[in-house]
Parts: sequence; structure tokens; C-alpha cells
Amino acid sequence: MSAKPVPALTQQPLSVINIGLSGFGQTIRDCGGSACDLRWQPPAEGDAEAGWALARLIADERIDAANRTAYGRYLASQPVLTGVGVAGDVIPGMSGRIILHSGPPIAWPDMCGPQQGAILGAVLFEAWASDIGAARRLIESGEVRLEPCHHHAAVGPMAGIISPSMPVWIVSNTAGGNVAYCNMNEGLGRVLRFGANDAEVIDRLRWMAKTLAPTLALIIDELGGLDLKPLMAQALHMGDEVHNRNVAASMLLLRKLSTAGLRSTRLERGALAETLSFIAANDHFFLNLSMAACKAMLDAAQGVPHSTLLTAMARNGVEFGIRLAGSDDWFTAPAPFVDGLFFPGYGPADAARDLGDSAITETAGVGGFAMAASPAIVQFVGGSARDALANTRRMLHVTLGQNGAFTLPALDFTGTPAGIDARRVLDSGIRPVINTGIAHKEAGVGQVGAGITHAPLACFAKAVLAVARNLPEEN
Amino acid sequence: MSAKPVPALTQQPLSVINIGLSGFGQTIRDCGGSACDLRWQPPAEGDAEAGWALARLIADERIDAANRTAYGRYLASQPVLTGVGVAGDVIPGMSGRIILHSGPPIAWPDMCGPQQGAILGAVLFEAWASDIGAARRLIESGEVRLEPCHHHAAVGPMAGIISPSMPVWIVSNTAGGNVAYCNMNEGLGRVLRFGANDAEVIDRLRWMAKTLAPTLALIIDELGGLDLKPLMAQALHMGDEVHNRNVAASMLLLRKLSTAGLRSTRLERGALAETLSFIAANDHFFLNLSMAACKAMLDAAQGVPHSTLLTAMARNGVEFGIRLAGSDDWFTAPAPFVDGLFFPGYGPADAARDLGDSAITETAGVGGFAMAASPAIVQFVGGSARDALANTRRMLHVTLGQNGAFTLPALDFTGTPAGIDARRVLDSGIRPVINTGIAHKEAGVGQVGAGITHAPLACFAKAVLAVARNLPEEN
Repeated sequence: MSAKPVPALTQQPLSVINIGLSGFGQTIRDCGGSACDLRWQPPAEGDAEAGWALARLIADERIDAANRTAYGRYLASQPVLTGVGVAGDVIPGMSGRIILHSGPPIAWPDMCGPQQGAILGAVLFEAWASDIGAARRLIESGEVRLEPCHHHAAVGPMAGIISPSMPVWIVSNTAGGNVAYCNMNEGLGRVLRFGANDAEVIDRLRWMAKTLAPTLALIIDELGGLDLKPLMAQALHMGDEVHNRNVAASMLLLRKLSTAGLRSTRLERGALAETLSFIAANDHFFLNLSMAACKAMLDAAQGVPHSTLLTAMARNGVEFGIRLAGSDDWFTAPAPFVDGLFFPGYGPADAARDLGDSAITETAGVGGFAMAASPAIVQFVGGSARDALANTRRMLHVTLGQNGAFTLPALDFTGTPAGIDARRVLDSGIRPVINTGIAHKEAGVGQVGAGITHAPLACFAKAVLAVARNLPEEN
Repeated sequence: MSAKPVPALTQQPLSVINIGLSGFGQTIRDCGGSACDLRWQPPAEGDAEAGWALARLIADERIDAANRTAYGRYLASQPVLTGVGVAGDVIPGMSGRIILHSGPPIAWPDMCGPQQGAILGAVLFEAWASDIGAARRLIESGEVRLEPCHHHAAVGPMAGIISPSMPVWIVSNTAGGNVAYCNMNEGLGRVLRFGANDAEVIDRLRWMAKTLAPTLALIIDELGGLDLKPLMAQALHMGDEVHNRNVAASMLLLRKLSTAGLRSTRLERGALAETLSFIAANDHFFLNLSMAACKAMLDAAQGVPHSTLLTAMARNGVEFGIRLAGSDDWFTAPAPFVDGLFFPGYGPADAARDLGDSAITETAGVGGFAMAASPAIVQFVGGSARDALANTRRMLHVTLGQNGAFTLPALDFTGTPAGIDARRVLDSGIRPVINTGIAHKEAGVGQVGAGITHAPLACFAKAVLAVARNLPEEN
């Protein structure tokens, strides 16, 4: 249509920002004027109840104060690798027949394939049953308690299985007094955490318990502990984001372990050679230590009433759950699928839903939140170096601040976005980004790819509603 | 002045690019029009003779053909660490009393402080004299030949001293048959390459010859050689540029050495522990291997008549010299000072001029040319992450291509700019960038900083004139 003159509302040319329906702006444009429509959507995806709860929480100074306290404890935390122990001996509440798994609570019949397969493998590893059939009957009988790692100050990648005889990393937050645990990384391929449970898998777990763990325990004793935050910070300067890329961190760890191990006269050369070769062959070895460190940092923030700071994002392959510093509840939604790159021979139809406790890294401000540190990771998870920078920058909108302990060279050494505020996620609709591996949906096939996913917004709506419900009216 | 109407040369508005004197553009601007002055300067900094020579070389297809051959040999090279040997045994022409030094040829009285100090230290290490005074008299007597490393298929960082009893890396280009050598890295602080020559320095060199080198020789034998190009490529994905930042490459090397060393029954545990601890304590350890690899890649291109491809940039602390694939001559200019960050307590007044053969890395397309891989290096050499990207991008204007073996994640995995063409440098006035350490100007103080410098344009003018002089007239 031909341009009509804009009515002379003012003496100057108008530059209109339209914050209403796009039809309002179109009228200006039809008259030959210039109008830019603001892209906007209602908070909480238009859920009126959650929106009103959010509005109340955003305006409430008590929430901000609680978040400052919780975030401060997270920032002040100093995770130190203090040892290696046997899960049943060191993890609280691990007595009797119990197996820990990743993600929020879930009953055996509802679990995904890889998690079921891994639990059956753990039963064999514990010698509670002599074959898979007997292991399945034992689990179905209910005689083995199945509980989330997160209920025991622990985390585990993928299936996240920790049974009482397994060795675990012990990471102490020396600034806060809390301790966190994680199992040890078995490598890639057919491994328990992807649901494999054949003899090779169980034999490897036995070797890890018998040789790897005692050797590491001696070396860590020789080292007198290992500060993990500086090591992770250095790895971020070397292209890792310490979730899905851990090659530098694994080598920094190996360098410490090998020199201390060779120095110590208590260590037998054969075991040392086996241990260091096992670590050297696995570029993801540090992941489980990164997770334990992140768990230790975030548990430091746990127990601050009314805080909307996230202290966990975790997935069991069926549900995605988040926890807040202000409560021990889980707020869940269906676990998403992962958008990523598949290994040759596999595709989206093979993929399990998002699985594992490893999103504890993003919750702590690394992983996808530190993707700007890791341009090379896009070869593994997809996208471009520009996307990696954009993912980090976008997360600044949903976090309480930036962690100066974890700086990003490519962003001129600013800190990683850290301290996810459930309110900001729900208000902006910007979902926390997660770099993650993709498991085959059937037990035991293994990793079939890696990619990027996002926390479901529904978790945050539930969380905000719960915080609002428990918040007393102001005097 | 008030705007006058632009004469109606055309019916459309004019957008003028002014490639003449800025006064021409100003006339357009005075009339209310828009003109952009092209920033331009004559090639060869206005040196008419060099400019005419350059014009002839740029138009000559024989130069392009020679460069394609030389560049192709550089690209095809496969540097492999094949062993460790004693300089006098393995380096060609090292018989008798001879000491190799960095940079172009230079006589003893003209040398800078650190290089003189290092040569005196080498005399003590060789036990050709019992004290510094006697060492100085021996050198002044002319009984010790002083020759550039580069004349013996070798390179050395900073003072670049190689004497006959010193251990050296042996790097073979398995694609071309040539072999390159480099001494071994002593660590930071008071070390020979910065001109220190006291008992601690000489003792360390003796330990390196007696323990480090034989241990490494056994491990490399156990490994059956080590491909250096993939290792360097991986380090570029981990934040190194393998000149002034080598932390990832050093760890990748250590990982290979430690597992092979523990595996080999021929190695005594004490020597292995000492060797691996020495390497683990030095984040620059890989530098000398990177240099030998780059020397092997570039020597592959040597001896292609009329080629203007650079095969060396090297400095002796007094002069900066370049060599071309088409000749064995040096083209020199005064060595520049380095613009950088100084260690606490030191400043520009303490700095020696640019020193060492380590610019062989930039000549081979890494170092400053690969700075986009290494945003964290700006903490060491100054500038911002943006500058690091810009340095790499700018070098695309002076190189023959990009080396697909060395990719840059932050630039979406494009190859590093590689193959410096002396013609392009002189034509554009864009001087090759070099990341480098800064030595104290007095012998023995050590490194006082690190920073960025640029090759002097005068070297390139001389080189282009020489190539033009030797180029027969076309039929």
C-alpha cells in the first residue's frame, strides 16, 4: 500500500517502540512511520498463578537477603579432594543393601533402561545375586533400597550408581565443613554408568575398587589433599568447561598424581603404572571430581530458608528435577531430549532422555555456563564458537552474579555466570543451558553422542509456587 | 562553512572513495557530499628501489611457482620426535671446540650480555676453562668457533646456546628426510639461556646431561617416536600457541612420557621420578620441542630457488634476521625491543633487545600467528582476548595460506595463517607478530617479562632486493 503521512503528533520524526500487540506497530508502519515491536512474552509461560507468585517473590526483600546468604556461601566454598573411600564406609546413610542413583527419586518400574541396567550391574558387583535374573528378582522384591545420590551428599554421572562397595572421591568444603562424594569414572564405551553390566564391566569395577582406589588414596595422602577450585579454574583457561570437556583438568590431575606417586615409597610400581595409565587413557576422568567439587560448593548453600538459589539440577532419564537452597524438595518435569551430535551409526531415535547428576556443574556456574572457555567443545556437542560465547552470555540473565574464581579468558577474564535464581529463569523464560552426554536408551549400549539441552521451565514454576506458598505474609 | 550543492555529475547521490591526497576528498566534503579517504602508504615504506623490486617480484609467476613448492613442502612435513642425543655426536659440523648461538651470525665482541654470559657458562660446562675469567680469555683468543644454531639444522631459545656435550632433541621430518635439533628447557629463573652461568646453572646442565637426557632417550625408544604435529594441534585446542604458552603441550608430552616410562622395565624409578618431576615443574618444557618441530617443518622448504617464503626469523639480541627458502643468506636489521608485561621489580629499562631462535614458531604459523588459540596468554604478554584474535587475523594478509593441521577453535576451526611471504610483508607493511619472553639485558638475571614484538620491515626490503637481484630476466 502507498505510504500515508503520519499525523503530526509531534514536531519531530517518531521512533516508536511498540510494547503492545504487533497490530499497534503495524498501524504506524502503514502510515509510513517506523515502529519496532518489543519481543515479549508473559512470565511463567502465561501461567497466571505462577506469574502472581513470581511477582510477589521478586518484590520481596527477604528472598534477596536469603539469596545473598546462600550465594555467598557458594562463592566462599573451598572444595578440597581429601581422599578416596569405600561408599558404605564414608557416605552417610549407606548401611545395608542400598544403591544410589542419579536424579530425583524414582521407583524401579519407572526407571529408564540405562539406569535399570546399571542397578542390576551394581547388584552383581556387590555379589548380592549371581546373575542378572536373580539380580532383577532381588530388586523387584524391594529388598534393596534405591535412593537419589543427592539425598546422601553424593552425585553420579549418567545412571549415577553408587553401591556400598564402590570407591568414591571424598571432597571437603574446608570453608563450610560439608563433604561431598562421587563415584569414579570408568572411561567410555561399555560402562556401568550407561547401563552395561557384563563381565568386563564388573571386572573393571572390581579392579577400580582393588587397585585404582587404594593407589589413589595413598597418592592423595602423599599430596596432603588437592585444592580443586584452582585446578578447575586453570582448566577453564585451557579449553575445558569441566563438564563435557575435561581433558586439561584430567591432565592437571594426572600431573599432580604422577609426580606424587613416583615420590612415595609406599607405592608399588605395578599398581602405580596401572593406575596412571588408566587415568591417562580417559580424557573425561576428572568429570567425577568436578561434580563432587560442584556438589560441595552448592551443598554449602543448602538450608537458607526462602532462598530461590538452585543447589541442584539432576535427571534420572525420566524426570528432570531441581532443588533450591531454601528447601529439600524436588521440583520436577519430564526430562528433555538432548540436541547434539551423534556418534557414527546412532541417531536421535537411539537416545535416552537427559540423564545424570552431572548438571551439578552448570548449577555451580561451570559446564554449559562456562562454555565461553571451551570453543573446541563445539566439535563434541555441536554449534559454533560464537554459540559457545552466546550460551555463557545468555546465562548472565538468570544468575545472581559471576564467580570470580572461574574466569573466562575469551570474555576478558570476567567470571562465569553463577548462582541460578529460579525467579530469574521463570521471569525471563531463559532456561539454564546444559552440556551433556547422550546415553543409548537401552541398557549397556553406552554413550551415543553429546550435545546441549535446557532445564524445563515447568520445574521453575513449581519451585516458585512452593517458595511463595511457604513465605509468611509480611508484617 | 555553509554547505554548497554538489554539482550534478550523476542523477544519484555520490558515495566517493578518495584514493588520492586527502585534499581531494575534502573538496567533496566541503560541498556537503560524502567522501571516504583510503588509508594507504607506499609499499616498502617509500623505498623506491625496494618498491620497484617488489613490483617485479609480485608480477613474476616464477616466484609464485617457487613459493607453491616451498609452501607445499612445509605443509607436508611430519615432524617426529625420534630421540635424544649428545649435540657433538648428532648435529652436523659440531666437531671440535664450537658453540652454537641464536640468531644471525655475530662476533663475540658485538654480542649482547645474556648471550655472552651463556657462552661463558657453556665453556665452564664443557670444562674448557675452570673459571669465568679463563673462559672469557679462551673465547677472546678465538679458539672456540661461535656459529648460529640455524647453520647446523638447530635452534635454541633466548641465548640459544648449544655446546658439544649438551643433550638435544632430535626431530625428524619423516615426510622430507631432514632432521632438526634443539637444546632442552632448563626451566625459569637463573638459567643458561638468559645468560646465567653460576654453579647452580652448570650443575643443572650436568644433571640434564647425566639423568634427564638418558631417561628421555629410553622413554622415547619405548614410545617408538612421537608425532609432534598432532600434539601441537591438540595443544592449540587447549589454549597454547606453543611459543610463549606451552602448558597444555607440556602436559600432553608428560602424559605420554609418564605412562611409557612406568611401563618400561629398563627405567630405574629414581631417575624416572626425577625426570618426570622436572618436566612437571616447567610449563614451558615443550617450547624447545615445538621449536625443533617448527625448524624441521621449515627446513623442509629450504633450497627452492627464488622462493620468497620465510624459513627463519631469529634474533641474537643485537640483530633480527630472516632467511628465505630460496637462499641461505640472512637479511638483518637491528633487533627491536619487546612491548610487554614486566615481572614485579622490572621495567623496560632492564630489557635486552629481542633475543632467540624461538620466532621459528611464528615462521611456522604458530606462536603469535596462532594467538587466537590462546586468549589466556594475554595475561602473560599483555593486551586483550580481542587483540589475540586480531593478531591472528592480521597475519592472514602476509601468509601464503592457512595450515589445516593447526586449527583454531575460536575462529571456527580455520587453519593458522602460515607461510610468510616476504613480498606480502613489504607490500602491506604488516610486520609478522611474535610472542616472546623478555631477557634482562645483563647476563644471568633471567627473564624479566614477556610480550609482543614485530619483525623489522628493513629485513624484508633487503630480502626482496636480493631475490630480485638474483632473478634472471624473463625470456
